Amino acid sequence: MKILLTLSYLGKDFCGYQVQRDKRTVQGELNRAARELFGFECDVTGCSRTDSGVHANMFCACITKKGEGSLETHIDVCKIPNALNAHLPYDISVKSARLVNEEFHPRYDVKYKEYVYRIRNCAQRDPFEEGRAWHIPNPVFTDGDIEKMNAAAQSFCGTHDFSAFMASGSTVESTVRTVKYAKVEKIGDIVIFTVAADGFLYNMVRILMGTLVFVARGKIKAEDIPKIIESKDRNSAGVTAPADGLYLNSVKY
Amino acid sequence: MKILLTLSYLGKDFCGYQVQRDKRTVQGELNRAARELFGFECDVTGCSRTDSGVHANMFCACITKKGEGSLETHIDVCKIPNALNAHLPYDISVKSARLVNEEFHPRYDVKYKEYVYRIRNCAQRDPFEEGRAWHIPNPVFTDGDIEKMNAAAQSFCGTHDFSAFMASGSTVESTVRTVKYAKVEKIGDIVIFTVAADGFLYNMVRILMGTLVFVARGKIKAEDIPKIIESKDRNSAGVTAPADGLYLNSVKY
Repeated sequence: MKILLTLSYLGKDFCGYQVQRDKRTVQGELNRAARELFGFECDVTGCSRTDSGVHANMFCACITKKGEGSLETHIDVCKIPNALNAHLPYDISVKSARLVNEEFHPRYDVKYKEYVYRIRNCAQRDPFEEGRAWHIPNPVFTDGDIEKMNAAAQSFCGTHDFSAFMASGSTVESTVRTVKYAKVEKIGDIVIFTVAADGFLYNMVRILMGTLVFVARGKIKAEDIPKIIESKDRNSAGVTAPADGLYLNSVKY
Repeated sequence: MKILLTLSYLGKDFCGYQVQRDKRTVQGELNRAARELFGFECDVTGCSRTDSGVHANMFCACITKKGEGSLETHIDVCKIPNALNAHLPYDISVKSARLVNEEFHPRYDVKYKEYVYRIRNCAQRDPFEEGRAWHIPNPVFTDGDIEKMNAAAQSFCGTHDFSAFMASGSTVESTVRTVKYAKVEKIGDIVIFTVAADGFLYNMVRILMGTLVFVARGKIKAEDIPKIIESKDRNSAGVTAPADGLYLNSVKY
């Protein structure tokens, strides 16, 4: 068996999910905590590789004994979240743990993932939102702007080649992804972009978000999104929104 | 004239409001920012002295030229918030500025202040709430417990000698304060205690909160609060709740 964890983390003080030498990473902390708890070296495999500063409301990861595809332990699986949390820093929290079979893969078996992107659209800065949202002080988007963003977001839905929304320099076998749903709403000062897909290209959500901001600002027309997708040209899309506002929100298997 | 600022700050990384040598304080940062903006040494006088780790959704402070009761500047007062913010760290934000006359005192002229205390009452820890709430994982308070807390909070209202709710070692002329209103509510996993008074003794809100938690846990009966107040004995009240959950929420002049 393998142990499948769900966890959340505040990305602010992490150099992303994936282990890097001499850098503070989520995977690095999970590796250490698992070793301390189980008493042997472990492999931790995540559902995704989030970038530096990106948060997770829900992230999934499997733990196995290093070099083996499984893990044996006498610890009751329902006690593993609290036991691991005792070895983890404040900015990672294991929420649940369950046993899955050895064929299960936390990345390849994902049906779809949902990301949320938060913009604080308000003149004043807010100390409580630092590193947790993209602060756009002006212009304050009108209801009409939000409607335009939402209309544009609908054009992301479906199966497309999303090359135009992939950071340059990225290599990947296929750039075709299926966006299941996408929407933009404004709650108080916070603009929330929600998007779910079977997979995402490198920086894809952040470029989709930057493009929607260009739509709100009138730099891109909502009806031009299909043409931008078709162009497969990164330069025709909007800016890459900063990492601060991005949250992996849920993972479905 | 003096400049009266309203600001907010995240208390997590501050050793409280008041200047201390070699410590990071809110007043220290405001002093430095004001000196950098106006080009001369300034005095910054706050409405209150919040402890290490305590937050402010709204805090008021006056700026004057050092050693003088006033400040002359050519900077348009409505531009002062952004101008000061340019010299301030991410965890302080100046929201507004206005001119007040030289007799105005930001502490002595307070009519009443409102504090909010947040408890996260949920088994699992939340990385996004670290340092921003008191985490009480169990027991999860029932609606009945919240009702009891709220009933107990009503006994705080009115004019009383609050010695029983003052940290020992504190010296103050009078320990009589008037609590204007107090209430406890639960929204999702968050228990919120709101209390307003013409002034607060040292650690008073945190001891009131700790006492209400004892009420929820059955260690103190709601109907015994008047007796505890009367006792003037710190030992008869509950624990001092941690600083993390405390927010100065508003200041009325």
